[in-house]
Amino acid sequence: MVQMSAIGRTTMETRNVGSERRFSAEKMQKVNLFETERMFADIYCLEPGQEQKRHAHSDADKIYFVIEGTGRFHIGDEERDLGPDQIVLAPANVEHGVRNESRARLVLLVFMAPNPNKRESPVTS
Amino acid sequence: MVQMSAIGRTTMETRNVGSERRFSAEKMQKVNLFETERMFADIYCLEPGQEQKRHAHSDADKIYFVIEGTGRFHIGDEERDLGPDQIVLAPANVEHGVRNESRARLVLLVFMAPNPNKRESPVTS
Repeated sequence: MVQMSAIGRTTMETRNVGSERRFSAEKMQKVNLFETERMFADIYCLEPGQEQKRHAHSDADKIYFVIEGTGRFHIGDEERDLGPDQIVLAPANVEHGVRNESRARLVLLVFMAPNPNKRESPVTS
Repeated sequence: MVQMSAIGRTTMETRNVGSERRFSAEKMQKVNLFETERMFADIYCLEPGQEQKRHAHSDADKIYFVIEGTGRFHIGDEERDLGPDQIVLAPANVEHGVRNESRARLVLLVFMAPNPNKRESPVTS
């Protein structure tokens, strides 16, 4: 039986991506917007020279959408500079990362599914 | 056993959200950007007066990010106008929809996880 009120959220969850952005001279900042066990949405904020090092997720897909600036994206065997309005898929099991090689700030909207940080109990416990 | 090369994608999948937008006088247009069994990313393009009718998904979360224009979002018991830079969560099981009540075009970036159109074979076959 589907419980239509199981989640118990009663208010509309909204964020403003413009006002949520946050930078640090120390390292790339990740600001979480939403998360459920099925996915998360973050903003990544990179000062010039900062990066998210290359890594892979065995069973989760990631999407990067460029909001501001230009990022040098590495996905699989390819590396490409992407700017505003461009969106890219980093499929599960594929190594990916992004560096800000520009002189301006880089802001990315990032989605990942499922959420590796908040996984439901595995079926094969 | 995890098959690291199971997906078989070799080229970087990128899209330009600006050039992918497409409108129709007939109804709201959905343009798919990416899809896997874990999620999809679409652009929704609404002329003034067009809408996505209220509906719910029993086990998938949706996110709407406003790229251009202003949408009147209905999520659960709430209705609110959201504009550029605003992002909103429509959790699983919660009724949601959006109408373009403005005089300008509305463009939304939409993510859903998991992908209800491309579900993997259920574990309990």
